[in-house]
Amino acid sequence: MSNGCEFCEIGTYGDYIYESDYWTIFLAPSQRYLGTCVLVLKRDLNDLMNLNTEEWVDFGKLVSKLELTLKKIFKPTLYNWSCFKNSAFRSNPANPQIHWHFIPRYQKKVVFSGLTFEDPDFGYMPQPVTRIIPKKIRYKLLDQIKKQFIIL
Amino acid sequence: MSNGCEFCEIGTYGDYIYESDYWTIFLAPSQRYLGTCVLVLKRDLNDLMNLNTEEWVDFGKLVSKLELTLKKIFKPTLYNWSCFKNSAFRSNPANPQIHWHFIPRYQKKVVFSGLTFEDPDFGYMPQPVTRIIPKKIRYKLLDQIKKQFIIL
Repeated sequence: MSNGCEFCEIGTYGDYIYESDYWTIFLAPSQRYLGTCVLVLKRDLNDLMNLNTEEWVDFGKLVSKLELTLKKIFKPTLYNWSCFKNSAFRSNPANPQIHWHFIPRYQKKVVFSGLTFEDPDFGYMPQPVTRIIPKKIRYKLLDQIKKQFIIL
Repeated sequence: MSNGCEFCEIGTYGDYIYESDYWTIFLAPSQRYLGTCVLVLKRDLNDLMNLNTEEWVDFGKLVSKLELTLKKIFKPTLYNWSCFKNSAFRSNPANPQIHWHFIPRYQKKVVFSGLTFEDPDFGYMPQPVTRIIPKKIRYKLLDQIKKQFIIL
């Protein structure tokens, strides 16, 4: 699944976490910022101006649940949200798909399953630099986020 | 009004465009990307997880109106949205304020009031590089956006 996004250049949104009525949440393939996720609109739409009220309300609930999920597990300092779709326009014809990047940001390093996560850009914009973590640790992270998300 | 944001380093959100029940819209001081605006939550809040349903619904309406406003005036190719707050954390204590950056992006250059606007980063993330335009042209731009926004 390629969506032409600078944060998704690996060509997949990542590992499935949760599905609501209108959105699907994935754990992003790149974990430069621990707990980075992608929220993808289920229907095919290019611009946010065409979202309806139900989709916004649903999105708002997922924003809360996801920030709170990460807060409970890793206590990030803050959360970055963005809907860009820029790199979709490097292709012709462009077919951007609405998806949000949820990027937790950390003032202090976090050690998870023996792996150290530092936020090398803290205080600045997130950079589209890929950090792939071992599959075993990714699955462990996925499990923790899924479990915490569901009980909220 | 300083809010500690890499896109707002001039220290002001910009020129007032419109006020809804929960948000205020400004024309951003930097016009590197023609029509860049900032949407600021009126109440004091640090994280999006604490927005309520009414604030999300109101935000969704403003997103539509603002994208449509710019579409009618300058026909941007796409729109970038972000809520970052990173540079607030370069200070201690940090006091981020919820605000969204609305950044229209252009595949083709636009000439407005004799000034040429090219999108030097088209296809890529927006860069926090300041471009100040002459006051007279800024006010003309502000007027056009205000008028179009109100009739939508």
